[in-house]
This record gives sequence, structure tokens and C-alpha cells, in this order.
Amino acid sequence: MAAQTSYQPPKRYQSRHLPFGDRRDAPFYGKHILSVKQFSREDLTYIFEVAHEMREMVMRVGSFDLLKGKILANLFYEPSTRTASSFIAAMQRLGGSVIAINEVRYSSVAKGESLPDTIRTLEAYADVIVLRHPQKGSAALAAKYARKPIINAGDGTGEHPTQALLDLFTIQEELGQVDGLTVTLLGDLKYGRTVHSLARLLSMYRVKLHYVSPPELRMPREIVEEIAQAGIPQEEHVHLDDVLADTDVLYVTRVQKERFDDPEAYERVKDFYIITPEVMARAKDRMILMHPFPRVYEITLDVDEDPRAAYFRQMEYGLYVRMALLAMVLGKA
Amino acid sequence: MAAQTSYQPPKRYQSRHLPFGDRRDAPFYGKHILSVKQFSREDLTYIFEVAHEMREMVMRVGSFDLLKGKILANLFYEPSTRTASSFIAAMQRLGGSVIAINEVRYSSVAKGESLPDTIRTLEAYADVIVLRHPQKGSAALAAKYARKPIINAGDGTGEHPTQALLDLFTIQEELGQVDGLTVTLLGDLKYGRTVHSLARLLSMYRVKLHYVSPPELRMPREIVEEIAQAGIPQEEHVHLDDVLADTDVLYVTRVQKERFDDPEAYERVKDFYIITPEVMARAKDRMILMHPFPRVYEITLDVDEDPRAAYFRQMEYGLYVRMALLAMVLGKA
Amino acid sequence: MAAQTSYQPPKRYQSRHLPFGDRRDAPFYGKHILSVKQFSREDLTYIFEVAHEMREMVMRVGSFDLLKGKILANLFYEPSTRTASSFIAAMQRLGGSVIAINEVRYSSVAKGESLPDTIRTLEAYADVIVLRHPQKGSAALAAKYARKPIINAGDGTGEHPTQALLDLFTIQEELGQVDGLTVTLLGDLKYGRTVHSLARLLSMYRVKLHYVSPPELRMPREIVEEIAQAGIPQEEHVHLDDVLADTDVLYVTRVQKERFDDPEAYERVKDFYIITPEVMARAKDRMILMHPFPRVYEITLDVDEDPRAAYFRQMEYGLYVRMALLAMVLGKA
Repeated sequence: MAAQTSYQPPKRYQSRHLPFGDRRDAPFYGKHILSVKQFSREDLTYIFEVAHEMREMVMRVGSFDLLKGKILANLFYEPSTRTASSFIAAMQRLGGSVIAINEVRYSSVAKGESLPDTIRTLEAYADVIVLRHPQKGSAALAAKYARKPIINAGDGTGEHPTQALLDLFTIQEELGQVDGLTVTLLGDLKYGRTVHSLARLLSMYRVKLHYVSPPELRMPREIVEEIAQAGIPQEEHVHLDDVLADTDVLYVTRVQKERFDDPEAYERVKDFYIITPEVMARAKDRMILMHPFPRVYEITLDVDEDPRAAYFRQMEYGLYVRMALLAMVLGKA
Repeated sequence: MAAQTSYQPPKRYQSRHLPFGDRRDAPFYGKHILSVKQFSREDLTYIFEVAHEMREMVMRVGSFDLLKGKILANLFYEPSTRTASSFIAAMQRLGGSVIAINEVRYSSVAKGESLPDTIRTLEAYADVIVLRHPQKGSAALAAKYARKPIINAGDGTGEHPTQALLDLFTIQEELGQVDGLTVTLLGDLKYGRTVHSLARLLSMYRVKLHYVSPPELRMPREIVEEIAQAGIPQEEHVHLDDVLADTDVLYVTRVQKERFDDPEAYERVKDFYIITPEVMARAKDRMILMHPFPRVYEITLDVDEDPRAAYFRQMEYGLYVRMALLAMVLGKA
Repeated sequence: MAAQTSYQPPKRYQSRHLPFGDRRDAPFYGKHILSVKQFSREDLTYIFEVAHEMREMVMRVGSFDLLKGKILANLFYEPSTRTASSFIAAMQRLGGSVIAINEVRYSSVAKGESLPDTIRTLEAYADVIVLRHPQKGSAALAAKYARKPIINAGDGTGEHPTQALLDLFTIQEELGQVDGLTVTLLGDLKYGRTVHSLARLLSMYRVKLHYVSPPELRMPREIVEEIAQAGIPQEEHVHLDDVLADTDVLYVTRVQKERFDDPEAYERVKDFYIITPEVMARAKDRMILMHPFPRVYEITLDVDEDPRAAYFRQMEYGLYVRMALLAMVLGKA
């Protein structure tokens, strides 16, 4: 729709705005990270190799200057201390800087600015944009307009791909591999965005999946079908003890009272989905317990000292995965 | 009013608090940036030279350590994601650090602290202070008490000098010069702080100014008179088509319904002040379209791809102007 | 309570989580800073030596890279621009980075997360945590769970140890020593957390303490007794003029109307606790006037130019003390 015109903007601006991929060979260079569906198993292997290197470097030197001089715009339309802090730390441990924007409700958006305009503003200042937004599809919309890489840090009922990647990376780092494992997803499997994305990623490996939930909160049929097509064995259960002895990875999410129409239905089932030392005593010696956090009552505090409780380490793995993604989209890994 | 006393504070504090200008030769070193009225045309030439160098450096290396170790306190009493982010990025691209303060309404100010005390607190920690404050005159008040440079990032109905500077710098960088151009200011010229400041700056160049607005929103008489005294030809119009074919720079601001006492008056005129591809088709081939942003409906999205649409580049020029100002007041340019 | 298990988390995580003190010899390395009660006089001497070095370095070079690559999580559950900015600047002047978290009320805490879980999340990303929290005992609770050092930046009616340290450091730097001085604490001595902590610290030196307050706002008996046991002479007065001529350090806090049941009682006394140039004219030539800030009406603005008015310098001393503490707990001083 551009009008016919002889006007040419000053030279350098044009070259700067060429698509990223045209300029360098690094995989993911200039790419957006929007959905777990964009990754092949090879991609995952590569991301986790880089993330593992990040982990080694952080253990050895804490921080290093791989992204010195680069700026991340951390654009959070809804609060998430954990995810925001993780991206900030990831950028800082790579020597980069962060523009942290948590005030969006008070800003130009409140004055009626569209997401694309906000994104195009921020890419005038920053080299990469991390976006958390309450609306499904917002990350894809941002990416459509952006000339700098967008990383989706959660788009409402849509996806939160870096969470799924860090979950999978945790399994690989803690247990040495993903193939051959039995993974049990527990709790609210109907509304839990994290378990949907994790199940999808796991379907690229040779795993066995158990879904343990109240009948009201079963895994959605479309996800079960999608994973069945990948040839992954899946079983649904109501009671954890049916599968606990067999489980290598127990991934817990909270069963919330508000999800039940009938309060009595909630009362009947809730205790089946709370992890205590007694439950852990019936689990394998070599297994890990995961949780996307925040945790409220669904894992009791006295489980924390169990070496199989991997949920605090899980956050540290998240740091390494996000360091890897930032380095990759900026062409430095 | 100081009491007679033999007490002398420890030595170094005294020397540190000498007026900035006494210590270095760099122009603007230690100076406050409060108003467009403080600049001569020579000053503007110098600022734009430095800003152009900043642009070259960012294009070539992204960031560099000119202000490494320096700290900017970015003190925003009202939210402005765009301006705040621009200053943060400017400081970071020069290797400096930022204390971002966006929460003023909840802070010691809420406890009754005066602006001068807040400023003197922050200058104990930082090397330069950027201030956004809803009250006209607040930046000058801050500067009166400050020993470190204050940069006015908008003081209510007062001024927003860095916006005016970036507007002018955009014209110069995009069209190669300012002298000889015909600049058309469109929309709400009565309440638009940015067009007032820009018109004042332009009056230092050999330009021709067109003001296109509804009768209710004409350029204030005192500004017209001020600019007339500078010998600048000015024309007022209601319809853009009267001057479009002749325009080198079209600067658009929004005509807001709330500005009209009579809703019908608004309905009658509003469409005259909306830029579409059809409007752009009647504009010169070599011209630029500017907007201070945020933009709502006054420039339609299908204009964005027109190479003459300079408003996203305008933000990038803002980054370079702010880098230049920060470096200058800190004695590094 | 950990279950019996053969599972061992990946190696490096274990070694990383050894208690800090086991790994290095530096005093305070890996230690929490929770209360003024944890310091011996030797500790104070050491802290102030380091703080003095920090001051020298900042005077000479502004910033330096002692903590380059280290990350501070600045976790403020209630707003405090002054304290938050001071810690941010302290970390930045040492070359480190900061994750500034001021939004806690909107974050996972709002979703029901406990302070220990938030702390364990942040220590996955950061190297040291500064905590401001409205509840007494919160810093100790955080420290109980933390593997990284916690610095208490105020826990409600509990303590604010870095304020007390900077107050004492101000006295030492301004007057060259603490022993032998007469220190007068003025105003609201009943509710003033800062004067309680400062009195405790001062009791480790050979000082004379005057408490000047309305009868309704006297220093609490338990603190008077505690300090008496240290052998420190203390006197209580209602009128400043009883002790002003003898005072080396006058520490002012605000007498707030809300503290009085009877408004007339407030009206009768309030003017006795306001410092004006006339009051300063009756003070010693060589003395200093301090205030923890924010200041409202209790020191009039025309006192600011008096060289004995040390309250703006006091904030700068706070920067050096916080730089010292950060460097110390991170094993770099």
C-alpha cells in the first residue's frame, strides 16, 4: 500500500532493517521464539547444548561478556516476578543491559497505543524484546511487526515456550536423558498451560506419559490425540499411587478449588494431589519432583529437603535456557 | 542564611560540589537541559553533530563505553514508557547504568518530601538526573537546587526539550538540512506542547511554516508573534490540501474529541486531519511524515510502509539525541 | 524429613550450595546482615575502614569493577525510593548489576507465594538479596532459608541496620571519631526505629547520650536500660536548649501529630522540635546536624546551607556503607 515515492530514508537505516536471517549463519539468529511447536528435536538438542554450556560458564565464572552492549527490552503487560527476573538475570549474566517495563498499564498503552506501535518503539532502542501479555496470540502479533527478535514469555491462554523448554532441560540435566523415561503429569491438566506445552515437547522423545488428575481436570482431548499421533503411550489415572512406583519425573501442578462447580467434588479429591514426604517415600529412589511455581499447598514444605525435589534447581535451569535463547537470537551462540 | 560556624565538612565533599562549569571546558558540561529557549543555533549545530556521531557509533558497534561507571537517575513522576525507555537505552548504549524510578507516587514523595529534597537525595547516588514531572516549572525548580545536571523530560504544560531536539534532528538527518524547508504542523496546535517547542526551534532556521488545524485548535497567538519576530513566514490553514503539495515535512498531532465544546464541530472536521495513503499520494515524492507518538487513528496503519513515514525512525533519532545530551552534560563530548 | 533416596542432584549444584563461610576467609563473606546486634566494635571498625576506602575510590574514579558480573536482587515489598536507589547505586558503582523488584504486591506473592519460596527463587538468579519487608522478623525468616546473603533493608518495626551503620559512619567521617562525643537524639524517640538502632550502636563507644523529646515520645525503657548496662551516660530532656550548647551530634526525627492522643498536647510542644537557623546559632561551631530523611518541616530549608547540616552528605555516606557491605558479603573486601 506504500505510495509511489522517490524518497529514500538515509542509507544505514535500510540495511539495518534487512531480515536478520539474511545476515548470519547462526541457527535462530534473528528468529522469534513464539511457540514450542516451532522446534524440531534437533533444535531442542542444540538449545540444550548451548544451555548446558551456559550452566558450565555460570558455575565457573558467574557472568561473562557474550552480549556486552546488547539491550533487552523486558516488556511485561502483567506481573511475573519470577519470569521477569529470570530474563533480567539471564541478560545480565551475559554482560548485557535491560530496560525493564512493568508499568504497562499506566503507560502509552493506557493512552490507546497498539501493541505493534509499542513493539516498534522499543525496537528503536533495544536489540531483543521479551514479551509477556495477557492475550493469546499477542506474541505472534508482535512478531509480525517486529524487526528485532521477540521472545514470548507467556501470552495468556496461549503458550509460555521458555517454561516448557526449561522443564525439559531440567529433566535432561537431572536424569542425563529424556528417552526411556516415564513422566507423570499431576493435578490440573485441563487448564495447566505448562503441562500442555511440556507434553507436546516430550512427544518428540521416546517417553511414556501418565496423566493423573481429578476427572473434572483431565488433559484436553485434542492434546491427547496430538500426542497419540506421535506414537507416545499415554495413560490417564485418578490416583497417583497407580503410577508413582513407575515414575521417573513427577510434574506437579495445583488443583484449585475455583475450577470445581461443586465444592464437595473438590473436597473429595484434593488430598490425592498433595505431595508429602509420605508420598515421596513410595516414589523411586532415582526420580525427580518438579513444579512450575509458585507453589502453595500442593507440595508441603518438608519435601523441600528431599534431594529428589528439583523445583528450586528447575529455576536455575531456567536461567541457563534463557541465556541460551538470548545468545542464540542475537547471533552469539 | 548559613549560621556563622567554624565547622568545615570533610575536604573532598567540598571540591566535589564546586559548580560543574568551573572544572572543564566542554560545552554543556555540568549544564542543565531545561528548555529549548536555552539553545542558540550554534548549540543546535553542535548537539546534532554529536548526535550524528552517536548514530554512526550505534550503527557500527551498537554500544560503547563512553559513560562507563556513570549513573543516571531516571526520575519519572508520571509514566512515559517511550521517553523513559529512550533515556535508559541512551545511557546503556554509552556503557552507563540507570536507577529507574517510576514509582514516585508510592515513595517518600507520598510521605511529603519536596522535589528539592528528592533531587538532592538522588544526586548523592547518581551523576545525572532525568526528570519527568506533571508540574510546569518543576525542572527549573529541581535545577535550582541540584549540583548535578538535570535534564527536563517533560514538565507538564511546560516543555519537553529533548522531544523538540529529536524532532529537529530527524528533519536534518532525513532531509540533509533544515534551511529552505517548508514545514507543515497539523492537528491540535493549541494544546500540542511538542509543536510549540518545535516551531520555536525551527524559527532559528530559514524555514516556511504552515499551521493546519481546526479553527478551535489554532496555534496560540503568542507563539505566532514570537516566530514572526524571528522573520519566519507563517501561514494558517484549515485544510491540509491547501499546502500539502508544497510540504517537505508534515508533522502530525492528534485532534482529540475532548478538545471540542460542540461534538458536531468535531465530527465536521476530524477527517481533515487523518493521514491515509490517499493523502500521501498527493504529497511530494521527497518529503517526510512525522508524529511524536503515541499515534491512535490520526495516521492509518497502511501508511507505515511508505518510505516517507519517518515516525519510527524518529524514535531512533531520539535515542541519538539523548545519548548526545547525556555525554555532553557529563563532559564526555 | 528428607526421604531415603539414592538420587543425587547433579554435582556442581551441590558444591555451589555449601555454606559460604566454608569457602573463603574474608570476614562477612556469605554472611547475612540482619541486625545491628550482630556487630562487635571490631566489626564496625572494619566495615567503616572498607566504607572509607569506597568513599576514596568513588571520589577518585566514580565507579570500579570490584563486583563486575555479580547480581543484586533488590526486593522491596514496600516502597522506599531512597533506600532502594542507594543500594542500586552501590551495586552499580562496584560494576555489578541489579534486578530491581518493586512490584511485589502484584506478583507471585499476590498469588500466595511464601517469602521463603520467593527468596529461593531469586537466589537462583542473583548473588545477593536486599530485602525490604513490612513485617518484623521477615529478614531473619528469609535468611533462614537463603543460601545467598540477605541484607535487611528494613523489616517493619524491626530493624534497618544499614541506616544505623550509615548514621554512625557519618559521625565518624564528619568528626573524625565517635569516642568522646555528646550525641543528642531529638524528636520522636518512642517510635523512631532509626534512633533505637543508632543508640544501640553508639553504646559500643565512649559517648554521652541526650534524649530530647515530648514526654509522650520518650525513648523506650528497655532501650534505656540496655544502654545503661553498657555504662553509657544518658540524660532525658524536654527542651533542646538544655543540652544544645554541649552537643556534638544533633540527630533529628520528626514529631508527628498522629502520635498524640490530645491535639493540644501536640500544639504545645511541636515548636520545640523544629530546627531553624536561630536554633543552629545557639549550637557549637563544630558540630553536625543529622536526619534520616525524608524531612518535612522539622528542619527548615534555610538551615540547608549551614555547613554543619550534614544530612545530604549523610546519604552519600550511606552509599559507601552499602558498597562496603555488598563487597564484604560477596567476599570481595
